[in-house]
Amino acid sequence: MDIGLVGLGKMGGNMRTRMRNGGVTVVGYDRNPDVSDVASLEELVENLPSPKVVWVMVPAGDITRSTVEQLIELLGEGDVIVDGGNSRWTDDEKHAALAADKGIGYVDCGVSGGVWGLDNGYALMAGGTAEDIAKVKPAFDALRPEGDSGFVHAGRVGAGHFSKMVHNGIEYAMMQAYAEGFELLEKVDMVDNVTEVFDSWRQGTVVRSWLLDLLVKALEEDPGLSKVRGYAEDSGEGRWTVEAAIDNAVPMHTIAASLFARFTSRQEESPAMQAVAAMRQQFGGHAVKA
Amino acid sequence: MDIGLVGLGKMGGNMRTRMRNGGVTVVGYDRNPDVSDVASLEELVENLPSPKVVWVMVPAGDITRSTVEQLIELLGEGDVIVDGGNSRWTDDEKHAALAADKGIGYVDCGVSGGVWGLDNGYALMAGGTAEDIAKVKPAFDALRPEGDSGFVHAGRVGAGHFSKMVHNGIEYAMMQAYAEGFELLEKVDMVDNVTEVFDSWRQGTVVRSWLLDLLVKALEEDPGLSKVRGYAEDSGEGRWTVEAAIDNAVPMHTIAASLFARFTSRQEESPAMQAVAAMRQQFGGHAVKA
Amino acid sequence: MDIGLVGLGKMGGNMRTRMRNGGVTVVGYDRNPDVSDVASLEELVENLPSPKVVWVMVPAGDITRSTVEQLIELLGEGDVIVDGGNSRWTDDEKHAALAADKGIGYVDCGVSGGVWGLDNGYALMAGGTAEDIAKVKPAFDALRPEGDSGFVHAGRVGAGHFSKMVHNGIEYAMMQAYAEGFELLEKVDMVDNVTEVFDSWRQGTVVRSWLLDLLVKALEEDPGLSKVRGYAEDSGEGRWTVEAAIDNAVPMHTIAASLFARFTSRQEESPAMQAVAAMRQQFGGHAVKA
Amino acid sequence: MDIGLVGLGKMGGNMRTRMRNGGVTVVGYDRNPDVSDVASLEELVENLPSPKVVWVMVPAGDITRSTVEQLIELLGEGDVIVDGGNSRWTDDEKHAALAADKGIGYVDCGVSGGVWGLDNGYALMAGGTAEDIAKVKPAFDALRPEGDSGFVHAGRVGAGHFSKMVHNGIEYAMMQAYAEGFELLEKVDMVDNVTEVFDSWRQGTVVRSWLLDLLVKALEEDPGLSKVRGYAEDSGEGRWTVEAAIDNAVPMHTIAASLFARFTSRQEESPAMQAVAAMRQQFGGHAVKA
Repeated sequence: MDIGLVGLGKMGGNMRTRMRNGGVTVVGYDRNPDVSDVASLEELVENLPSPKVVWVMVPAGDITRSTVEQLIELLGEGDVIVDGGNSRWTDDEKHAALAADKGIGYVDCGVSGGVWGLDNGYALMAGGTAEDIAKVKPAFDALRPEGDSGFVHAGRVGAGHFSKMVHNGIEYAMMQAYAEGFELLEKVDMVDNVTEVFDSWRQGTVVRSWLLDLLVKALEEDPGLSKVRGYAEDSGEGRWTVEAAIDNAVPMHTIAASLFARFTSRQEESPAMQAVAAMRQQFGGHAVKA
Repeated sequence: MDIGLVGLGKMGGNMRTRMRNGGVTVVGYDRNPDVSDVASLEELVENLPSPKVVWVMVPAGDITRSTVEQLIELLGEGDVIVDGGNSRWTDDEKHAALAADKGIGYVDCGVSGGVWGLDNGYALMAGGTAEDIAKVKPAFDALRPEGDSGFVHAGRVGAGHFSKMVHNGIEYAMMQAYAEGFELLEKVDMVDNVTEVFDSWRQGTVVRSWLLDLLVKALEEDPGLSKVRGYAEDSGEGRWTVEAAIDNAVPMHTIAASLFARFTSRQEESPAMQAVAAMRQQFGGHAVKA
Repeated sequence: MDIGLVGLGKMGGNMRTRMRNGGVTVVGYDRNPDVSDVASLEELVENLPSPKVVWVMVPAGDITRSTVEQLIELLGEGDVIVDGGNSRWTDDEKHAALAADKGIGYVDCGVSGGVWGLDNGYALMAGGTAEDIAKVKPAFDALRPEGDSGFVHAGRVGAGHFSKMVHNGIEYAMMQAYAEGFELLEKVDMVDNVTEVFDSWRQGTVVRSWLLDLLVKALEEDPGLSKVRGYAEDSGEGRWTVEAAIDNAVPMHTIAASLFARFTSRQEESPAMQAVAAMRQQFGGHAVKA
Repeated sequence: MDIGLVGLGKMGGNMRTRMRNGGVTVVGYDRNPDVSDVASLEELVENLPSPKVVWVMVPAGDITRSTVEQLIELLGEGDVIVDGGNSRWTDDEKHAALAADKGIGYVDCGVSGGVWGLDNGYALMAGGTAEDIAKVKPAFDALRPEGDSGFVHAGRVGAGHFSKMVHNGIEYAMMQAYAEGFELLEKVDMVDNVTEVFDSWRQGTVVRSWLLDLLVKALEEDPGLSKVRGYAEDSGEGRWTVEAAIDNAVPMHTIAASLFARFTSRQEESPAMQAVAAMRQQFGGHAVKA
């Protein structure tokens, strides 16, 4: 098949390569002419046979929105736009409605894989109609990992990004689980070699996972992790997962706690704990650090 | 009544004053001769009429244990030892058993009040037999606040410290509740004067409390709390409360989270968040702070 | 002063009484003719001298929105609408912008007090311009409790409801704190009379509060709380508080956990714990309850 | 090598088989004569060449303690006792001290693998001196999975069970992470097929793991998990992990929350939420479920 790909950054560039390796004809466009195959979105669209499929791989929010709006101008009945970025599922519903006014199909697709995706394949969670999904299928097949897993048509438009969002929420709490265990093992003097303990868990245990493999790799490169600061950004999906949980009255103790731990990790000073210290000083004459 | 009081520090000294103001004859002993009424524990015991009641107000752990052991040597059948310190309820059971071997009664008493107790009275939570409690009653009456509340005979030996421990656990989560609200109000630019908001809550609201009064006092002295660091010790009772919850399969999300927030407040660096950052770097090529 | 009051339910009806007792001339409108002073919103507006002040006390969401829209039709330059309901602060900003197009002022006001407000006064947290607040001041003074606290002009439009929202978030965690302590005390056989322990805390302790007074009242009426099910609704403000925390990267462990505990309390079955049980069965052959 | 194995239940029986398959001569003893190789502990010890190695695989607590005490009677200088059960690391220190008085070595070994261990091997985390570990090495080699991982000498006596305990704590939070994500996906109507979403995550994603494989297996056998109740026991290690975290001032939000979620799952009624409901009723006249 032929596909247009908008956005050729770290993720998009690798995905172009993997799709080409998988036999897909990719026309890539990026604002950076050094990596772009064509000079404009117009040129990208002109170079595609109908029905035209254009995969958008740009930052979520305003940039995705304006790209989708431009594509709606350029495309027509029966064409399909795929949003493969990290958009919130609520954006998908809005974009799909805009596209539908011109008879353009819309597919949202959560993509997992990071720097490992080029070689191992990208896990894909897609939302949309069966008809629209079918038009993108060869590209999905080129991108996804070998084997039975790694791709799902999760439901209607939005379901792809929703599933990917939940995946990321789970990821937050899994990472926090290993992290809390790491801190406890590091803290006690009884355990001589924490790296070896984690490494031993990679086979035969209940906690073996790809994340564990990565943590062992990190520990082997930097035992004790002295070269990295305990500072963690959050990318949006964790927040949205907790918000969706609240909207749906789903108790979400561990994922929310993991998100809050990231917030705390970025604070120079905690106003909340200043308030706790101030109260302690008032009632007990407890000394405070000034 | 006559009572012996061992330990005349910040708490014990004020309690001696309040008991004397309440008509109790107090013989105080402290290792510091400047504040002590007598030269030794022996002299203290000699100065008391039978049945002798001795109130121990020294740091929990080894010092309380050795003091209790010395008193068991010096006292006899029908006398009563009161542990008014911050002992764990499990210590009470051990000490009471030792005392019982010589026919000495044992009462444990959790004391709340801090620097405010001298003027306002100390809230008292006592454990022991009705007979032993009765022997200490005049001292309890002198120490407790005026009014119907402020004293309870909570149950058998240990029940006093257990109740006080739970009180402190609740206190942790209440403080954290105000603290989280404070941080959110401080963070948004919509609210002009956070101190005034907290002050307004002191009447007519659901969250009015003595802790709120203290927080407002702290905010009025230091708006924005810029003079206090977000660093909070924990005194033991919070830990024991969570441990007791675990022993009894009681879910305790907010009290445990408050305790963990204090642990975090004291860390220069979080090993757990170093592990999270290291994993993020491995799978996503996310930049880390080094 | 004269004021129009829209909504004469449990809250609004009592507020009308308290304002009248405080010397405010109130024209009340309600869809229920049995309690309404006038037959329509139009008649209410006609009965007010300029600048006209109308206090809206109806359910948040669609009903508040349509009431505000109708009032904007009926009012004019220099008049003021007060939203005293439980609206989200984001709604205030939208409503104020609509009102401003016609030169109508807007004040949002969080009201605390419940069934106790008629006698004790309602705590009020208001947002808006100083000029608009001044026009409503006599009504605020009639409603608020006696004393220095109980009213705050918290900031611009939205700040009143935002402050009230945070108040409610704090309330959730304070209630959960007492609740966790209650469960632990109930669970152990060491403590004979949990009601008496809570009652004793009402004086001289760090945890004394109005909520504690209420809990003791409930325990005295129904020791062991056997007549009430462990089922707790949430009213919206708790959810919004956690969402605002997420938007502002504020760690909020205890308030979020309290919200989640309420979600759990309303579940007949926990899908999450079904998943945990199913995994345990798979890896360990642990028996599950079917 | 030759080894004695005490306890031939589900775990012990399979471990005997796997050791024999690996060339180890195993003399097994169990109170159940149907599975036992010998009639008594004495006979077991007599059948072993020196230095004698005896692996104890019985329930933690009193049964392990009495078995170890009997073995100390029967064994002598240079022999080694291995505790492969789920003992708390603090027990190991006591047992090792008792054994050391007679010159008997002591090794503690956390064993992971459950019903899968017979075929795939058991992950082993061992504590003890290098000399004692060396005497047990051939048995470890027979039990562990093929490959580089699956065995660690974690440190001195106790370090094996400590590491296994932390492993289990991490396991709790990982399971809870998947479980919370499952509940959210089940709750929304946007996602058509939750089983397929989880299945798709098995390749190319950040959350792929053995636990995920198990959850997918469970979901395929029982989509929606309607045949399993949301009721989860906890086996001790989760509790001990949180207690160790508290002892070491390690914040452990997600593991503690996972443990509390299990406590909640086993409650018919939540006393804490009864208290919340009772307070809501008092202050707001909120209806309660009776």
